[in-house]
Amino acid sequence: MKTPVTVLGLGAMGTALAQAFVSAGHPTTVWNRTPGRAPDLTGVTRAKTVADAVSASSLVLVCLLDDASVQEALAPAATEFAGRTLVNLTNGTPAHARRTADWATQQGADYLDGGIMAVPAMIGGPAAFVLYSGSEAAFEKHGPTLSTVARPQFVGADPGLAALHDLALLSGMYGMFSGAIQALALTSSEKVSPTAFTEQLLVPWLTAMMAGIPALARELEYGADDAAGSNLAMQSAGFVNLLDASRDQGVDPALLVPMGELLARAVREGHGDEDIAAVVPLLRTAG
Amino acid sequence: MKTPVTVLGLGAMGTALAQAFVSAGHPTTVWNRTPGRAPDLTGVTRAKTVADAVSASSLVLVCLLDDASVQEALAPAATEFAGRTLVNLTNGTPAHARRTADWATQQGADYLDGGIMAVPAMIGGPAAFVLYSGSEAAFEKHGPTLSTVARPQFVGADPGLAALHDLALLSGMYGMFSGAIQALALTSSEKVSPTAFTEQLLVPWLTAMMAGIPALARELEYGADDAAGSNLAMQSAGFVNLLDASRDQGVDPALLVPMGELLARAVREGHGDEDIAAVVPLLRTAG
Ligand SMILES: NC(=O)c1ccc[n+]([C@@H]2O[C@H](COP(=O)([O-])OP(=O)(O)OC[C@H]3O[C@@H](n4cnc5c(N)ncnc54)[C@H](OP(=O)(O)O)[C@@H]3O)[C@@H](O)[C@H]2O)c1
Ligand SMILES: NC(=O)c1ccc[n+]([C@@H]2O[C@H](COP(=O)([O-])OP(=O)(O)OC[C@H]3O[C@@H](n4cnc5c(N)ncnc54)[C@H](OP(=O)(O)O)[C@@H]3O)[C@@H](O)[C@H]2O)c1
Repeated sequence: MKTPVTVLGLGAMGTALAQAFVSAGHPTTVWNRTPGRAPDLTGVTRAKTVADAVSASSLVLVCLLDDASVQEALAPAATEFAGRTLVNLTNGTPAHARRTADWATQQGADYLDGGIMAVPAMIGGPAAFVLYSGSEAAFEKHGPTLSTVARPQFVGADPGLAALHDLALLSGMYGMFSGAIQALALTSSEKVSPTAFTEQLLVPWLTAMMAGIPALARELEYGADDAAGSNLAMQSAGFVNLLDASRDQGVDPALLVPMGELLARAVREGHGDEDIAAVVPLLRTAG
Repeated sequence: MKTPVTVLGLGAMGTALAQAFVSAGHPTTVWNRTPGRAPDLTGVTRAKTVADAVSASSLVLVCLLDDASVQEALAPAATEFAGRTLVNLTNGTPAHARRTADWATQQGADYLDGGIMAVPAMIGGPAAFVLYSGSEAAFEKHGPTLSTVARPQFVGADPGLAALHDLALLSGMYGMFSGAIQALALTSSEKVSPTAFTEQLLVPWLTAMMAGIPALARELEYGADDAAGSNLAMQSAGFVNLLDASRDQGVDPALLVPMGELLARAVREGHGDEDIAAVVPLLRTAG
């Protein structure tokens, strides 16, 4: 028999996780605060309480809205966790992860914190991956089962490391989306077709410019190798046009403002002839 | 003989443009405010004044720092422009482009405004393209010559349209870079290798998430097709973790703040169960 699995939370993501386990033949127990969620999910056992759900499986996944909901949901079932593995796939900070790891240890449970790098529709597919940190023994034991939902990747024994990597990747994604949103708001102001603009220009352009990101990382790790082809003084001068054109077109420039301020600060602080990698250290407020 | 070309400005980009023309066998005249720039650029005629440079070719490209430098450089040579084509590849706003187009028309010149979608190292290569708007006749006539530096793409007779598309694409690029910068600042705070993180996680993740951008555009053009797999209430709750973790790690969250505010506002205004496309209309301040 395949490992029995419990999934706490039947939001969009919890439902996709439970569906993947059921489809792969794992006996799957689910619980959700509001009964009747995910009515199309069949072949699962629906538990009435978190304690019932937890006691059904030695591997318990939790995927709720946020850290506060995890604390609230798990507390009443604390005594059920001894000897089980708790895998927390709820988005949270490194600090949240470390605290829940301590709590799990106190209950006699193994703990893995996970960051799901996928949208629900990608679960079970080839591009989805989940970052894990915490108990390496639990990862060794349950990795094959966890690979049912997405390729598992262990990033370290410090339980906070999955969240750190997850939030870094989400920062990257939200940056990319905020840029796309600004681009679409700007072009929509002149009745340019969003789909034509995106397919013919925006996606090819972002794909080409993405080559600049490994270059930026290499420069951070090994230092600048030659003169900047796109110096920050030029970039800062051009950035003013992004802000002005947004305002002229009746589009809020707010998403762009902090990047403009960072470029201007870099120039003010003497980095005008360097390139974009020079701004990364400016974000450090400590250490 | 190939069409003679003049390039005004020998910064990083002007130099790359002039080099591409010379390499392709175009008689190439250059001018730069500060003499002696781009000493490695051979096979060109170096003009002492803008007027001399302009009078050498019927096709004149200008690529200077910003709109103010273009106005300053061209004014003394105004009377030389009659019967020529002025192609302005300097970054500017739609308003700048329309004003320079009017000025060129007054001098009896054809005008094309252009937005270079490439870094200098890409000039002459396959991924580079330049957006043009303005005189369609000039584009028909000089398109083949202009294709020497990059694939030319005409976006409309309104001279402001190239700048609009250019600035929209740059907004997209700066969003993506600001996300990557935040991601690298966050991971660097825990001594994660920038190159390993970028190659193994960040670039594959951004590449996967880029599929969300055409989906967003389709939703803007045709409306939402089904329930959100990633609802804004969940995204807004998770975004708080990005800000908190940045602060905890000693990294300035400033680049992330406006996106967090936009998500929170979308939830406040009743879009909590919609997806990210719902924020685009919120950026409209007019119209
Ligand atoms: N969807 C994505 O694209 C995606 C991607 C990666 C990671 N994630 C993460 O996965 C987690 C779940 O996201 P989702 O998309 O499934 O969200 P969702 O569809 O909004 O579902 C939220 C879930 O949390 C539950 N919940 C909220 N407050 C609760 C509380 N106080 N006690 C118990 N349960 C509570 C809800 O139960 P009720 O039905 O009772 O309200 C529901 O099951 C989040 O941390 C999210 O950041 C999501
Ligand atoms: N580099 C890129 O990645 C890139 C990509 C796309 C578009 N662009 C655009 O291309 C344009 C040029 O960029 P770049 O990278 O070549 O910049 P750059 O290397 O900083 O060169 C700036 C040029 O502008 C000239 N200049 C500045 N102020 C002037 C003035 N008042 N009068 C006359 N000339 C003046 C400089 O002449 P001096 O030598 O006398 O200072 C120099 O030739 C900008 O509008 C930029 O936005 C650049």
